Amino acid sequence: MMKNILGREIPGYIEGYGIVTQFEGTFKRGGIKVKKEVKVNSVTPSDEKVLGSIEEVLDKVCLMDGMTISFHHHLRNGDRVLNFVVDAIARRGIKDITLAASSLFPNNIPLIKHIRNGVITKIVTNYMSGPVAQEISRGILKSPVIMHTHGGRARAIESGDLHIDVAFIASPTADTYGNINGLYGKSACGALGYAVSDAMCADRVVAITDNLVPYPTCPIEISQIYVDYILKVDSIGDPAGIVSGTTKITKDPVGLKIAKMASDVMVSSGLVKNEMSFQTGAGGISLAVAAELRKYMKENGIVGSFASGGITGYLVDMFKEGLFRSLFDVQCFDLEAIESYVNSHKHQRMSASMYGNPDNKGAVVNNLDIVILGATEIDTDFNVNVTTGSDGAIMGGSGGHSDTAAGAKLTIIVTQLTKARLPIIKDSVTTVTTPGESIDVIVTERGIAVNPKRIDIINKLKDTNLPIMTIQELKAIAEKMTGKPKDIKFSNEIVAVIEYRDGSVIDVVRRPL
Amino acid sequence: MMKNILGREIPGYIEGYGIVTQFEGTFKRGGIKVKKEVKVNSVTPSDEKVLGSIEEVLDKVCLMDGMTISFHHHLRNGDRVLNFVVDAIARRGIKDITLAASSLFPNNIPLIKHIRNGVITKIVTNYMSGPVAQEISRGILKSPVIMHTHGGRARAIESGDLHIDVAFIASPTADTYGNINGLYGKSACGALGYAVSDAMCADRVVAITDNLVPYPTCPIEISQIYVDYILKVDSIGDPAGIVSGTTKITKDPVGLKIAKMASDVMVSSGLVKNEMSFQTGAGGISLAVAAELRKYMKENGIVGSFASGGITGYLVDMFKEGLFRSLFDVQCFDLEAIESYVNSHKHQRMSASMYGNPDNKGAVVNNLDIVILGATEIDTDFNVNVTTGSDGAIMGGSGGHSDTAAGAKLTIIVTQLTKARLPIIKDSVTTVTTPGESIDVIVTERGIAVNPKRIDIINKLKDTNLPIMTIQELKAIAEKMTGKPKDIKFSNEIVAVIEYRDGSVIDVVRRPL
Repeated sequence: MMKNILGREIPGYIEGYGIVTQFEGTFKRGGIKVKKEVKVNSVTPSDEKVLGSIEEVLDKVCLMDGMTISFHHHLRNGDRVLNFVVDAIARRGIKDITLAASSLFPNNIPLIKHIRNGVITKIVTNYMSGPVAQEISRGILKSPVIMHTHGGRARAIESGDLHIDVAFIASPTADTYGNINGLYGKSACGALGYAVSDAMCADRVVAITDNLVPYPTCPIEISQIYVDYILKVDSIGDPAGIVSGTTKITKDPVGLKIAKMASDVMVSSGLVKNEMSFQTGAGGISLAVAAELRKYMKENGIVGSFASGGITGYLVDMFKEGLFRSLFDVQCFDLEAIESYVNSHKHQRMSASMYGNPDNKGAVVNNLDIVILGATEIDTDFNVNVTTGSDGAIMGGSGGHSDTAAGAKLTIIVTQLTKARLPIIKDSVTTVTTPGESIDVIVTERGIAVNPKRIDIINKLKDTNLPIMTIQELKAIAEKMTGKPKDIKFSNEIVAVIEYRDGSVIDVVRRPL
Repeated sequence: MMKNILGREIPGYIEGYGIVTQFEGTFKRGGIKVKKEVKVNSVTPSDEKVLGSIEEVLDKVCLMDGMTISFHHHLRNGDRVLNFVVDAIARRGIKDITLAASSLFPNNIPLIKHIRNGVITKIVTNYMSGPVAQEISRGILKSPVIMHTHGGRARAIESGDLHIDVAFIASPTADTYGNINGLYGKSACGALGYAVSDAMCADRVVAITDNLVPYPTCPIEISQIYVDYILKVDSIGDPAGIVSGTTKITKDPVGLKIAKMASDVMVSSGLVKNEMSFQTGAGGISLAVAAELRKYMKENGIVGSFASGGITGYLVDMFKEGLFRSLFDVQCFDLEAIESYVNSHKHQRMSASMYGNPDNKGAVVNNLDIVILGATEIDTDFNVNVTTGSDGAIMGGSGGHSDTAAGAKLTIIVTQLTKARLPIIKDSVTTVTTPGESIDVIVTERGIAVNPKRIDIINKLKDTNLPIMTIQELKAIAEKMTGKPKDIKFSNEIVAVIEYRDGSVIDVVRRPL
């Protein structure tokens, strides 16, 4: 058993995963990289791409035991494509499939049956929540699940670390030659950034749509030159699960206090100025930070260059008010975001690779000034966990957390100091999702801790009246409120391998006892 | 010496080119293809991409003897980037460079000096006209020039047949992180379709711009994830040479007669109906065909799916009138096309690969119903020459000629029967650019010949009063007008290898005596 530079105990070899490349720090594995070669079944003018049934699709792509199939998660908890395809594969008696889904949600519950039956024996994903995550945490999957970041998944696919045999792309709109967009149709979800690497690199690519339109559709997000076949189905998704309603700012006074403090930190850092760039999540506190920033930018006549990430109506409003010149959108969180993406060419899509892949010639996260992120746990080395919950089971994953934290000039974690009577700050997080090296400031309602290596920020905050303290002091305050929680006990069985965005292993998840 | 299936004498091995894969017919080399792996110098948040001088660029990309450099031709005869870069390379004493330029124009005359001095020893291009083409025809280049089609060039780059060490991309607009578009700036040229494969596959990519803008520019045609460095210069092009003025329909009654007949052929074919697709060139007769089609579509309430190719103001007008639902644009020929591309998302860009690469999963040409093309010579097997002139020297090249001819359901050549007192129809063309197999109908002012294998079209035209005749009859009429021209005499020296879009050799050009 080895300890990596974060002190995590990780074996040099993991059964069902292979040899481990230990995490050695952010940006330690750069240099010259290779995008793998890609197999292409060329298409002539006499070939037809639209097929009649999922059975015909599985025949044409020669789906068989041991293959890797991929899915994107833009339809979120409303997606019907993943379950539909895996059910069809199971009906054929196919076994030993690797499921590479960019995220898994509660509605993917039928997977549990397919895992138990040996249809699915490996899973690669960036995020999972709900019953599938719980069951995997209990050890039902033959091999440990591999968890990527959003940028890391694109890297893995493009480099060949994650070879996809067949990508199934849930397509809100597809034309008869395979051009795809997510903007129109009854299952519209907006940008399709997480599906782009799959489409470009998989051996075979199948568009599954409930809105098959005449050639050509406009605009084209995924091009005909990457798509082998198209299948029309009745419904690819449940609109209620696809987009949230209007994303809303928290009304909780504690959350609003945290947001105001985070805004003060941002302003004090000197980064809130013309041409600034900004990313925040869709959570209530994150949006409250955006609201504070909006006020400040308006009062001070500041125009930023871009806001990025999964885009919410709130960021769209700021964009429409001229507070940002443009938006970079990898997925739309709500209908306002979709509408804006349709109507303005300055609301630009980005692929997951362009968003966060550390091995291309510069991802969008590299240009981020400020990112606001959440945390389930933080430790005194500033490592953040957003992968496992207080019971030690998987209930999330990095998504873009590690990507944006690594790229941004200022990474701020906003969180209440305690949640469900448990302290957020611990000596050591249950799972490291994002290394402390790329976390700069933690803002809680009781105090603010700055990463000691960011002397520049410490100096800038020194003369403010913000409650700056060490992370140890913050931890002590939390523990005074809640008591020190009991440690979770784990078996030795590894149920998940957490890959950092560069493909090294930053941590593993062991089965909680 | 071997004869290929078109009867062209082509050696099995050509010095300076290598082993020849003989042309065996259209769509004979399909099946499973491979896109080559691509080297990427990964970029971290602390890296800067904007460099200060061409000298610094050449240092950073380690430009050295024997390398292949590439350029696109969207700035046409106004381009200043190619000469600027090659001059800088020559100043360093670098030799033996392969120049992969998508096209060469009269303004590239300084290349002659660099060829004579051994700076440039190989050239790969899709089209060349002017002094460079004339001198190459006289044998000044060490190796034969390789001539591709537009789709074939994308295929060669993506497959690795044409490996590019450094791509220099003339960029009307670039931001500080390498996002590029051709829409804005004093050298705006519109879509940048011919540069996309270069950007995606070259080892190193340099954007050269005279309009460096803050990050991010919108829209993005070539993404930051493909661009290593950016260089700002005073001027990348002479606007007078970049776009033609408004493209104009011929006023010549002979041309108008040909256009009317071509339109009658199109209508009689049954392809002029709702959802039709159409491509035509920017020449006077080609536009006159578009004008006839426009009239017919309006009178009969027909709405087509798309028009494609290099886009002219005339096609934009038809698009705006609702005669086509969308445009696929690989390059904009005039200011109206650029303006339309800026303003409508249904005026869509396409890369050269999406336009015509036979080895991807279906190019746009595969969906073409009708294409109108020109010819310098046609032979009785319907083979077309647009590469060499009446003196046997190179004065053009396929461009998209072979790509569209192969893809379209109906390929019509429009031409006067004689040009400069020479007959257009010959027993054997000087150079085969496009094989007769993919040419369906030839329309001249004196008669129309249909490829005998298109019995369906012959039957459809039988009951019209169009002057249908055999190609031999058409040839006899021409020769009666002009006499039979003297054969051009050629040496054995091969000055150009004409690759068909699939990479096989369809013909060679020998040095005229």
